Amino acid sequence: MVDFSDGPHPGGFAAPMRYDAEILDCEVEGTIPPELDGVFVRTGPDWYYPQLYPNDVPFSADGYTSTFRIKNGRAAYRGRFVRTPRFVNNLEAGRQLYGVYRNPFTDDPSIQEETMEKPWERTVANTTPMAFAGKLFALKEDAPPIELDPNTLETRGFYDFGGKLSSQTHTAHPKPDPVTGDLWTFGYEATGLCTDDVYFYCFGPDGSLKHEIRVKTPYVSMMHDLIITNEHIVIPVFSYIATMERLKAGLAHWGWDPSLPGYFGVMRRDGDGSDLKWYDAPSGTTIIHTLNGHSSGDRLVMEAPQFDNNPFPFFPAVHAQTGDMGPIGRSHLRRFTFDLNGDSFATEQVFDDPISDLVRVDDRYLTQEHRYCYTQYTEPGVQDRGSGWIRLDVQTGEKAVWYAGPGQALQEVSMVPRSADAAEGDGWLIGVANNPAEMRSEFVIVDAVEMQEVARVILPFRSSAQVHARWFNAAELPEMV
Amino acid sequence: MVDFSDGPHPGGFAAPMRYDAEILDCEVEGTIPPELDGVFVRTGPDWYYPQLYPNDVPFSADGYTSTFRIKNGRAAYRGRFVRTPRFVNNLEAGRQLYGVYRNPFTDDPSIQEETMEKPWERTVANTTPMAFAGKLFALKEDAPPIELDPNTLETRGFYDFGGKLSSQTHTAHPKPDPVTGDLWTFGYEATGLCTDDVYFYCFGPDGSLKHEIRVKTPYVSMMHDLIITNEHIVIPVFSYIATMERLKAGLAHWGWDPSLPGYFGVMRRDGDGSDLKWYDAPSGTTIIHTLNGHSSGDRLVMEAPQFDNNPFPFFPAVHAQTGDMGPIGRSHLRRFTFDLNGDSFATEQVFDDPISDLVRVDDRYLTQEHRYCYTQYTEPGVQDRGSGWIRLDVQTGEKAVWYAGPGQALQEVSMVPRSADAAEGDGWLIGVANNPAEMRSEFVIVDAVEMQEVARVILPFRSSAQVHARWFNAAELPEMV
Repeated sequence: MVDFSDGPHPGGFAAPMRYDAEILDCEVEGTIPPELDGVFVRTGPDWYYPQLYPNDVPFSADGYTSTFRIKNGRAAYRGRFVRTPRFVNNLEAGRQLYGVYRNPFTDDPSIQEETMEKPWERTVANTTPMAFAGKLFALKEDAPPIELDPNTLETRGFYDFGGKLSSQTHTAHPKPDPVTGDLWTFGYEATGLCTDDVYFYCFGPDGSLKHEIRVKTPYVSMMHDLIITNEHIVIPVFSYIATMERLKAGLAHWGWDPSLPGYFGVMRRDGDGSDLKWYDAPSGTTIIHTLNGHSSGDRLVMEAPQFDNNPFPFFPAVHAQTGDMGPIGRSHLRRFTFDLNGDSFATEQVFDDPISDLVRVDDRYLTQEHRYCYTQYTEPGVQDRGSGWIRLDVQTGEKAVWYAGPGQALQEVSMVPRSADAAEGDGWLIGVANNPAEMRSEFVIVDAVEMQEVARVILPFRSSAQVHARWFNAAELPEMV
Repeated sequence: MVDFSDGPHPGGFAAPMRYDAEILDCEVEGTIPPELDGVFVRTGPDWYYPQLYPNDVPFSADGYTSTFRIKNGRAAYRGRFVRTPRFVNNLEAGRQLYGVYRNPFTDDPSIQEETMEKPWERTVANTTPMAFAGKLFALKEDAPPIELDPNTLETRGFYDFGGKLSSQTHTAHPKPDPVTGDLWTFGYEATGLCTDDVYFYCFGPDGSLKHEIRVKTPYVSMMHDLIITNEHIVIPVFSYIATMERLKAGLAHWGWDPSLPGYFGVMRRDGDGSDLKWYDAPSGTTIIHTLNGHSSGDRLVMEAPQFDNNPFPFFPAVHAQTGDMGPIGRSHLRRFTFDLNGDSFATEQVFDDPISDLVRVDDRYLTQEHRYCYTQYTEPGVQDRGSGWIRLDVQTGEKAVWYAGPGQALQEVSMVPRSADAAEGDGWLIGVANNPAEMRSEFVIVDAVEMQEVARVILPFRSSAQVHARWFNAAELPEMV
């Protein structure tokens, strides 16, 4: 039987919620802008069965996708667990069969033969939603995308881009290029567990493969995100390490090793990978998420939040005693300017305060020069207003902050332009606020110019933890009613 | 848009919840008895759209059915709104179209022509679940039963017993006769709003009509429940009144009029109604629910909780000023012994403390002499143990009480025998506890002999308010997986 009373699982607002649910016409305070016609899709982790081992990590919790379908001023909510092979097998067994994070050596014998051979079947698809070629997906970097029905969120199965995804894995951070309409994406550990192969792909909007690049990395590190500029690909390689020895020892996939060198790998996106150049970067830091970047002549400028320590205490230092997690890092938004003819880059801090590393631009500016960065932020010294969303002008340093309200915790923000040709910054910030006082989650729409709330969709329950979320216009998902 | 921020709707634990949801394998503390194979079905009200008028009543809130499917020691939860014509029309309009309780005069013009002609289409199906002839239903006394898919809870539509339900309405308290296997049931206001026609039916287990009786009542009163003994039918008629004048004045269906005489109507269940005899009963009291009764020679003994005042403040006194609701009644379990050859009955109080009127016997003893009454009860002076379920021996007055825990509120209990031939009282008490501290509901299984908790199913959210609930063995719903 399912018993969470023992073990490391949180209670209260963060307790496992474990439901599929639907609300056809949500409660709303304020007025939903009638121009909004699309869907806000959230992906996050929730333990359907208690974790097998104490050293498993939150990233192993089952993927749950939830949507706010916004149309004609109304909001409908749907939430559903992704029916991964793992979810299905666990449900049949009535218990957790899968061991620690990305380590099939720790799996239950009943399924281990299968997971050693096909480690991607261990995926929980809990990281990021994607719309591509008219289809909806849930992504996690250890497996191919899993396609979902955009109306019911029912699981349709793994998607291999019509057989063109040669990598065993696919990132949770593919980058749509708004200029070409293509999708740039990649898989690391592309040929198996702890392999140093990274495969990059450019897929056309019709799903066709337009370009592929295969490279190797200096060591097997967490390549959670990357930068695609108008001309280049930038790969951050920092401080996390995965080895087969770790896996055989029953450890979670990643260990934190600040003695490892840091790198940015830079190559042309239209090349064959032979031009890949590794720029030395400070060790003991890491970049999990990126903001954006663009290339111009012999210069490449990119921005990303950088942690000066390990942000994930559940991936402990490889040289430390068990239980010594080290301090949790905080990230600062930095700008990295590469001399493409040289072998160095300049670093400047874009903003002095630490901010959440779930940074976003208006996606119409991906690969291009942008002005605004949006993320969660609470100004130091500000109290009792809950967490905020910041609009940061990365050119002037000017900031504007909207706060959710006392006690409330905001999740990743998305920026929705008011129209296809609206000026940068003209639109809405949308996302979910957790309201522990009411034990419920709320979907908030904030005018991104005025930085004022315009509507709030009230859920009657806690919704899932969110890793990432994306807004898709109705036209991107033609099946969606 | 759906906005509950104004108006009389409660917040906090009782806030509208408005979701359909499913949990395939619920979290459980303790051990679910492996003998249990069936489904606990709950029916209750939840406002999908805010009520139109301040004088509408909680009984008008949309019907929500939820189930705990218990099998092989596991529990699955499902909850779904009944798709009544009202629910469907409101959803399309995006707002509440229906006026006050059982009063189509107050409906929105867009649907009023329909509701005046077919008032049963106003039903919200929020009162009691029923299993009959292998099918699952949600009941409310203003309409025919609505059939539900026993697996998905999807709505299949009104059920007229193969054309044999001549009444426009059907009670929420049909009585299965465990001796014959028949279902005894009835409808009041059988021929239209505020009509004094009451139709009684006996349906065989195959769904066939075996007997029908048509009678009239002294005045149009709320006949929420009745007593079926092994030989007789007893109809309580007390203190509530409905008139077309009330409806035309925009009032809720029922007014409380303590000047009206009280009656028990008694007739043979195998007769044609011509033997119906009205026994005078105290005015200013009421009986909403009944426990059970049996006939023996010229004596009929029945037990029911009796309120000595109006239990429903939202049905105010007809002679009072608006807003004067009068004191809320509390019920006492009383035994009424009828002299079938005379015209009087004796009343004795079975239990001195007030108890909830949601009284239940082991259903195997319906129409027969019983020993145990089960209901919600908190012993006067007992504090900080939450509400309790009492097992009351109505023959000896002996009581045993199990308490849910501090702050917790129990809903109606059901008694499940350990096996088909177990002794009376040998089995489990099951039902839902609301746990406001955790903002969640929990399904509890209590050993009815030891009066000790054996298992608790933890929901991650508040479930719906419950009016009534029933346990059905798997064999009663052959479609159920």
